[in-house]
Amino acid sequence: MTSPTFELDPRLAADSIFIADGPLSQLRLMDDARFPWLILVPRVHGATEWVDLDGASQRLLLAELNQASALLRARYNNLTKLNIGALGNIVRQLHVHVVGRREGDAAWPGPVWGSGPRQPYADVQSEVARLRQAGSAGGFSTLPSAPPGE
Amino acid sequence: MTSPTFELDPRLAADSIFIADGPLSQLRLMDDARFPWLILVPRVHGATEWVDLDGASQRLLLAELNQASALLRARYNNLTKLNIGALGNIVRQLHVHVVGRREGDAAWPGPVWGSGPRQPYADVQSEVARLRQAGSAGGFSTLPSAPPGE
Repeated sequence: MTSPTFELDPRLAADSIFIADGPLSQLRLMDDARFPWLILVPRVHGATEWVDLDGASQRLLLAELNQASALLRARYNNLTKLNIGALGNIVRQLHVHVVGRREGDAAWPGPVWGSGPRQPYADVQSEVARLRQAGSAGGFSTLPSAPPGE
Repeated sequence: MTSPTFELDPRLAADSIFIADGPLSQLRLMDDARFPWLILVPRVHGATEWVDLDGASQRLLLAELNQASALLRARYNNLTKLNIGALGNIVRQLHVHVVGRREGDAAWPGPVWGSGPRQPYADVQSEVARLRQAGSAGGFSTLPSAPPGE
């Protein structure tokens, strides 16, 4: 169900960093130090809506959502709430946000989407490395040490 | 898996109208005429995070999300995009938003959450009736004609 012709949207590529491949999706870190913010991008050519994926892909995405949530909890302390969102009003390529929220964070209690310009990490690759280290706790069993060609 | 002690959060009760019961969740219409906006509220006492539901409930919620999306498409024309969100920063009771978006709507291309005060329908019960009529197309096989006691 993964398309060989999958190409990551250039805006997602510019704003986020590859962490790992799940069975269906690329797991990526949004390069915004304000929020613990993961993105799942199913490697399905042309997909725009979760509900239009076939049933098997939908269930894989749900499983990956669980894993991404566990990874956030393994890596970051004291998350008040998880926020899940699949919007795609600007970038149509299907992608699902999983964001750890803390009371008083830069957008609290509003949504992170549209909350102003992102603030890139000082060293985003270190954060990706820490996430990969926490990965097994988060349920991602295979975390490559280097991203595949994008 | 549905809790007998389920109680709807009073803020959800005040802002949205009962449409139907799915196997897991109440399906409700957000009383905001600016957007075609459905809400699924799992009848699970104390639930706050989708990813903390048991697996069977997660899959039911996913199925209901498909049904709610189909209902939006059956009732409303020309939806540019569906937006799915589970935030809960303000109302902690687990609820999932399924919103039909149109280019140029009141919040486009931003999220509907935090997009200003809702604008109640002139006659919200008529809209609920139309949604119930469209319900079979949307996959909700049992749409009660009257809400249960809330």
